[in-house]
Amino acid sequence: MIVAPRAANGHDLVQGNQTYTIATLGSHSALQILKGAHDEGFKTLAIVNPQTERLYRSFEFVDDVVVIPRYEDFPQNMDVLEGRNAIIVPHGSFVAYLSLDEHKKMTTPYFGNKSILDWEASRELQREWLTRAGLRLPRQFKTGAEIDRPVIVKLYGARGGKGYLFLRNSHDFEQRAAQLARQDYILQEYIIGVPLYIHYFYSPLTGKLEIMSMDRRYETNVDSLGRIPSQAQEGMSLSPSYVVVGNSPLSLRESMLAEAYEMGENVVRISRDLCPPKGLFGAFCLETIITPEAEFFLMEISARIVAGTNLFIDGSPYSYLHYSEPMSTGRRIAREIKNALMANSLDLVLDDSHTR
Amino acid sequence: MIVAPRAANGHDLVQGNQTYTIATLGSHSALQILKGAHDEGFKTLAIVNPQTERLYRSFEFVDDVVVIPRYEDFPQNMDVLEGRNAIIVPHGSFVAYLSLDEHKKMTTPYFGNKSILDWEASRELQREWLTRAGLRLPRQFKTGAEIDRPVIVKLYGARGGKGYLFLRNSHDFEQRAAQLARQDYILQEYIIGVPLYIHYFYSPLTGKLEIMSMDRRYETNVDSLGRIPSQAQEGMSLSPSYVVVGNSPLSLRESMLAEAYEMGENVVRISRDLCPPKGLFGAFCLETIITPEAEFFLMEISARIVAGTNLFIDGSPYSYLHYSEPMSTGRRIAREIKNALMANSLDLVLDDSHTR
Amino acid sequence: MIVAPRAANGHDLVQGNQTYTIATLGSHSALQILKGAHDEGFKTLAIVNPQTERLYRSFEFVDDVVVIPRYEDFPQNMDVLEGRNAIIVPHGSFVAYLSLDEHKKMTTPYFGNKSILDWEASRELQREWLTRAGLRLPRQFKTGAEIDRPVIVKLYGARGGKGYLFLRNSHDFEQRAAQLARQDYILQEYIIGVPLYIHYFYSPLTGKLEIMSMDRRYETNVDSLGRIPSQAQEGMSLSPSYVVVGNSPLSLRESMLAEAYEMGENVVRISRDLCPPKGLFGAFCLETIITPEAEFFLMEISARIVAGTNLFIDGSPYSYLHYSEPMSTGRRIAREIKNALMANSLDLVLDDSHTR
Repeated sequence: MIVAPRAANGHDLVQGNQTYTIATLGSHSALQILKGAHDEGFKTLAIVNPQTERLYRSFEFVDDVVVIPRYEDFPQNMDVLEGRNAIIVPHGSFVAYLSLDEHKKMTTPYFGNKSILDWEASRELQREWLTRAGLRLPRQFKTGAEIDRPVIVKLYGARGGKGYLFLRNSHDFEQRAAQLARQDYILQEYIIGVPLYIHYFYSPLTGKLEIMSMDRRYETNVDSLGRIPSQAQEGMSLSPSYVVVGNSPLSLRESMLAEAYEMGENVVRISRDLCPPKGLFGAFCLETIITPEAEFFLMEISARIVAGTNLFIDGSPYSYLHYSEPMSTGRRIAREIKNALMANSLDLVLDDSHTR
Repeated sequence: MIVAPRAANGHDLVQGNQTYTIATLGSHSALQILKGAHDEGFKTLAIVNPQTERLYRSFEFVDDVVVIPRYEDFPQNMDVLEGRNAIIVPHGSFVAYLSLDEHKKMTTPYFGNKSILDWEASRELQREWLTRAGLRLPRQFKTGAEIDRPVIVKLYGARGGKGYLFLRNSHDFEQRAAQLARQDYILQEYIIGVPLYIHYFYSPLTGKLEIMSMDRRYETNVDSLGRIPSQAQEGMSLSPSYVVVGNSPLSLRESMLAEAYEMGENVVRISRDLCPPKGLFGAFCLETIITPEAEFFLMEISARIVAGTNLFIDGSPYSYLHYSEPMSTGRRIAREIKNALMANSLDLVLDDSHTR
Repeated sequence: MIVAPRAANGHDLVQGNQTYTIATLGSHSALQILKGAHDEGFKTLAIVNPQTERLYRSFEFVDDVVVIPRYEDFPQNMDVLEGRNAIIVPHGSFVAYLSLDEHKKMTTPYFGNKSILDWEASRELQREWLTRAGLRLPRQFKTGAEIDRPVIVKLYGARGGKGYLFLRNSHDFEQRAAQLARQDYILQEYIIGVPLYIHYFYSPLTGKLEIMSMDRRYETNVDSLGRIPSQAQEGMSLSPSYVVVGNSPLSLRESMLAEAYEMGENVVRISRDLCPPKGLFGAFCLETIITPEAEFFLMEISARIVAGTNLFIDGSPYSYLHYSEPMSTGRRIAREIKNALMANSLDLVLDDSHTR
């Protein structure tokens, strides 16, 4: 369905007479994606709403802006992409605003493998994937009665940490039972350790995995509780919340880097069994907690660019090991699409699961 | 009073035969300001004291160093700037060492609008400014008896977080009453959420606002309390203190960036009513707390370059969206002065409130 | 023993016909060291084990990889360096894997002064060094009975924070007495304040000290305890651990920078008395806690490159004040070796204590 450029001349990103346009929704990591696309020579398009229009228009690397009423309406407004020679680069907000079905119905060229979304969206399938990759996962409890240690309750569809609940024990669970009664959720062991999110990029063109950067989330209110002395907390009946409002940068002890690299490789390898033949490619993130035994516990996988990479729009200590230019994950995606065009193999980096 | 270059030739920063010198006090963000000025082609001058002389002399981009006995003596030593074709770029330490009156009496060309200082220095006027800009502010209490939730007591003139006091309730207040008796202070609701400081630059030449970078303060001892388990804290009778000794970098969730941008625009817009015609321009910072509802609460505005920008002397992920070079806020200031010189409009970026 | 290049031609890093190779163990800060060496024109060699081989081979700047069974076996495998014109750049893992004696027996050219290792390895000698440099140190207690405030117990040879123990009082000490009975340790006052690690580089060629960057360690589990509300902590019987698994970046209040610079200078100055004539040179780190009185307390000195510099492989806000290129500490080391070669003075930057 995708027509690669007539001649892979190695110089432009043109199909017929028209330059390719990288398009995305104005949210999450769109600035990074579009800046990166611009730096790699693409035209760029931001799909925005009236609230975000001013912001995205203020950046020179955004060539074109299309306003839709609400991001939820994007599936009904796909025609704004027609005739633009557009390639969509998805990010975290796509999952928030588009259903799996709407993802699959989209016919615009799409960077990534849509069939992996099923394995990510279902907590059970995701657990199977990570387990088969040999990763260490927190215990899960099926019922409140089983709980024998602190847990995190994660409501289905909870995004950005909203709707996470901390429970100390099964007694806590009973008290919340009414609140949880009609909801779907998982009960996950609360691992005591420090969070670390590892941003990877897997290139289907070279078959190589790169570690791009690392961060931890900045969550309100839990990341401010420690600033209140415990005596003061007592009178305040604080309940912790995990709403992600930003990120802060980290580096990982180098002696643990080989294991981090291997975890990424294993996740990619297994994904080829799950969604053959392409499996997972492009950007993804492993969200870990590291215990005092220096063991990684896997909380979640995000099968696309994550917001933590926004810390590194001007490059990261890790990406600098591979690239002499500031290489964000967003730019790395554009570079991959460019390389595919140069090699006359655009189909290698686009979804074709919906045509199979 | 300021004579712009005879010819705006677009090539040098020369008045008559003399290059302009960017001058500042050796403290706060002086390294960034002078490095930025050097990179933009200015001569640079650090006004130092005997304790800081060695440090500032160790940098090659500092062309000239003038030693005065104490920074408090700067107003009496203004003549050191004479005959140097100097433009002063102020930073946070200026407010600490110079009174409002001394600021206004300074006749050396001064980047920024001095009349905005009145609106910043008075907590009441600042509150009026931010409220008129439509920003969300924490509640304030007039008397100890009114306190119905945790508060921060901020002594008037408290700098760098020194002299902040945390009180759980009105009972705490009574216990501290003696200590507070002869002081001026405000009682501000303690907002539970995570701090985020947003660094802006507003260009009077282009009329455009830019987000330069973001940070949070690194405060002793509150930022270490969380490392002590609550049981251990109990025997230790810890009282939290908020002395700022550094900063750490952050990024903001992109879906909240449009609101952050708008807050900055509103603050600038209202400032033109308060201090017409120029209002606030150049660097400024909004100091926010973000709640679990993802709402920004405004703690304070700093109407100049803040120390948090020192994390980004080599550029930030946000400034990289606008500039292909490492663009610190200090360098952005020098760039603005240079652009004004090029356009024969130096007066647009200098204070003229004292001559009005 | 070291033969400098025949002609200091200022263009290549060649001895006879052979380019110098920078070699190090594949761990800790090896990526930074080898990337920096590559960027300065050296050949690079990573000595790895079967677990880390894949990782180090994945980087193009690693010219050569030698696999040994275990890092502990490095002293028995020194011959892998023969005939390679190698210069070893040591890092923190060297101290973990090689005894002081093995360090001294190594005959391969070695960046740094091995005799300083004695002063660093012994906690008593280190204390003498830092005290003579005029630095503020935490109190130490000789016996458990003396303890009159919270302390950190540091086992001898504890690496990366493993084996640190927090005790509130002498009662806590008694409860742990059995566990500590047969061990060597020190009892160090627990200073309440925020940690800041300052990375320095002292050049024996220019006699100048540079501040390269700053960080704090990321320790599991203490850096996550604050995220658990105190009420929840109570039922969980948490004991804090200090295992370092990463780092996060910081900047220091500029008004404290002169003191930080002076501390570094004093440490270097005294080291020349301790280990004449060269003393400490190259990279080192002062590990401080800053109290609410804005006083630095010195926890420890590391007499070499520390892992916190891994945050700044692509440069830091502080190194950018001196260098227009991304200058990591690893690259700064390579630059120093290159400068020494250019000046025909390689011996100035290599250890000669073992030949004295």
